Amino acid sequence: MSKSDRKKLAIVVQGGTMDKLYCAFILSSTAVAMDMETHLYFTFWGLNALVKGAMEKAGLPATYKHLEEQMKKNIKRINYPTPYEMLKRLKQSELFKIYACSPTMQMFNVKQENLIPEVDEIAGAATFLEIAAKADITLFI
Amino acid sequence: MSKSDRKKLAIVVQGGTMDKLYCAFILSSTAVAMDMETHLYFTFWGLNALVKGAMEKAGLPATYKHLEEQMKKNIKRINYPTPYEMLKRLKQSELFKIYACSPTMQMFNVKQENLIPEVDEIAGAATFLEIAAKADITLFI
Amino acid sequence: MSKSDRKKLAIVVQGGTMDKLYCAFILSSTAVAMDMETHLYFTFWGLNALVKGAMEKAGLPATYKHLEEQMKKNIKRINYPTPYEMLKRLKQSELFKIYACSPTMQMFNVKQENLIPEVDEIAGAATFLEIAAKADITLFI
Repeated sequence: MSKSDRKKLAIVVQGGTMDKLYCAFILSSTAVAMDMETHLYFTFWGLNALVKGAMEKAGLPATYKHLEEQMKKNIKRINYPTPYEMLKRLKQSELFKIYACSPTMQMFNVKQENLIPEVDEIAGAATFLEIAAKADITLFI
Repeated sequence: MSKSDRKKLAIVVQGGTMDKLYCAFILSSTAVAMDMETHLYFTFWGLNALVKGAMEKAGLPATYKHLEEQMKKNIKRINYPTPYEMLKRLKQSELFKIYACSPTMQMFNVKQENLIPEVDEIAGAATFLEIAAKADITLFI
Repeated sequence: MSKSDRKKLAIVVQGGTMDKLYCAFILSSTAVAMDMETHLYFTFWGLNALVKGAMEKAGLPATYKHLEEQMKKNIKRINYPTPYEMLKRLKQSELFKIYACSPTMQMFNVKQENLIPEVDEIAGAATFLEIAAKADITLFI
């Protein structure tokens, strides 16, 4: 399919907890399997999850903290990939791009060398809005 | 109005707390009143709220837990419907459909017979993305 | 650029914590700088943040509460505007409009005179859905 005919999915990933990361990556995996261009713009807690070593430690939000251990066990039992494993598989697709929010990096004092190598581009909100304005589906997770 | 002319609203309901459920159902009620097709895809905590008996127990998230009792009292005082009452009213419209996320059911070990009868379809993310790609409004709640 | 050619951004601001408000206002500032019409519909905790004096007290959600003091210090150190300062700057643009959700006001017993003067309109969900159905980007924050 030619680039211009492809459907496009654009997501702001603001959350950094396991449940939000799974939502972003499950939607992305399905989207690339459907031949959709998929763009994830990581900001705030999502950006912090792109710091080396952070995604492996992601847990559940305060409201659901008591379910965290059980959920992690279930995921292992059914051999479900971790969020970071899903991200690495997604990177095998040319349709998938991830962006790190530069204002968040300034706000949280995160340097480029602290980010995982899977990041495609460090960008401001204008980059996301330009992509999103042409996308068929836009979400804020 | 013919099916193809109708505006479409597609929402991922990831949250399962009372505030998120109200947002999803208030937007849905307004949308069907405006003759819009309305599709809600319940995943994660949203899916867990579709388990029989769960929606009636939905409360506020940790950040706002201290306001829960007062909010429930206010809602009763002004005779506002509960989230489940709103869902049942919405089901009277042919424009309203709800989907239960099958990967979440596997992750949380939820069986079909545990879900409330209002669910229209158990479906994977591809079903949502196909609907959302044709929708006029897409949201993640 | 003529009104009809302009790209449109429509956001439901449901969150009232500092991280969600920053996301809404940073996206909005960038959007108006890109000559996009920007519509923010404040509901639930977002609506509560429009009560006089409330936005100045907005903090982080329970999951990230322990980072609140440090984040506020960082923001001061880099001379980043507060959420309310951002909102007031945004109001200088004719492209930016904010709406207060009337059902939420009823639910939380908030009166019009309690709201900050920057609110453009008190409106129900139908107003948001009409704008969103014509928008290029729709988000729920």
